[in-house]
Amino acid sequence: MGLFTKDIQTLDDLFVHTLQDIYYAENQITKALPKMIAKASDPELKSGFEKHLSETEGQIRRLEEVFQMHGHQPKAVTCPAIDGIIKETNEISGEIGDKTVLDAALIASAQAVEHYEITRYGTLVAWAKQLGRNDCASVLQQTLDEERATDERLTRMADSQINRRAA
Amino acid sequence: MGLFTKDIQTLDDLFVHTLQDIYYAENQITKALPKMIAKASDPELKSGFEKHLSETEGQIRRLEEVFQMHGHQPKAVTCPAIDGIIKETNEISGEIGDKTVLDAALIASAQAVEHYEITRYGTLVAWAKQLGRNDCASVLQQTLDEERATDERLTRMADSQINRRAA
Repeated sequence: MGLFTKDIQTLDDLFVHTLQDIYYAENQITKALPKMIAKASDPELKSGFEKHLSETEGQIRRLEEVFQMHGHQPKAVTCPAIDGIIKETNEISGEIGDKTVLDAALIASAQAVEHYEITRYGTLVAWAKQLGRNDCASVLQQTLDEERATDERLTRMADSQINRRAA
Repeated sequence: MGLFTKDIQTLDDLFVHTLQDIYYAENQITKALPKMIAKASDPELKSGFEKHLSETEGQIRRLEEVFQMHGHQPKAVTCPAIDGIIKETNEISGEIGDKTVLDAALIASAQAVEHYEITRYGTLVAWAKQLGRNDCASVLQQTLDEERATDERLTRMADSQINRRAA
């Protein structure tokens, strides 16, 4: 979609645009996670990020399925929000010398990414239902459930070990 | 803090840096919300955004209180994440002609902002407790509770009327 072209006329257009936005975001996340895995020191955090990377690849395939179900080719549009979140992750990582403090920052960054995904998938599920596309809503809901579970897992990991070691 | 200067050595440094990040974010939100109020058509959505603006002003005062409690002057550092989220809000608004569809997009954007705040305040509360600053944690928790309540209120408004009108 071009900027300021009033290309979005209907809720259906907005739904497709937001699918394209999160499709871009998920693809950027698959590029950012290997760098986060490389920077993480705690083995459980590393393996948590590896699990997230593999889940993200599955979520991209699910988005492609939703595009097809809804009669569109998968396409990405630049998402300044995820670009900003990833830029902030890179900046903060570059400022931290201590490994345990870096792990605490990395887990916080990963949760910022999760929350962006949670809000977008929550919206997409609501819009799909409103558009009578319960089939699309059901596929998107699977990803939403995964994102919420990942966020909770990261919170438990932060509370149980990462933050304590950093303090 | 400068970029890539390894200025953050401890969890306490990271806590203060993240306070500065969300202090910047809250101030940017107070500038973005009046534009969202002006663009919204639904009266309840408009008044919801007005309530959020007034809450945000209170949250800024709370952050200033936490800075002082922790022996620091309130200071902002650029937060690329909130800049990206607000940029995306402005871009999408510019592409939508229909007022009811614009309302649906605005509520989704507001929830993206809320989720950024929820993740950052959640992290700040956890770090404050780890640092033995339960006094700071308690003030930050008040804001976290407000953000979660606002997000739930926006979800209810979207489900009950805004998305239906846009469809």
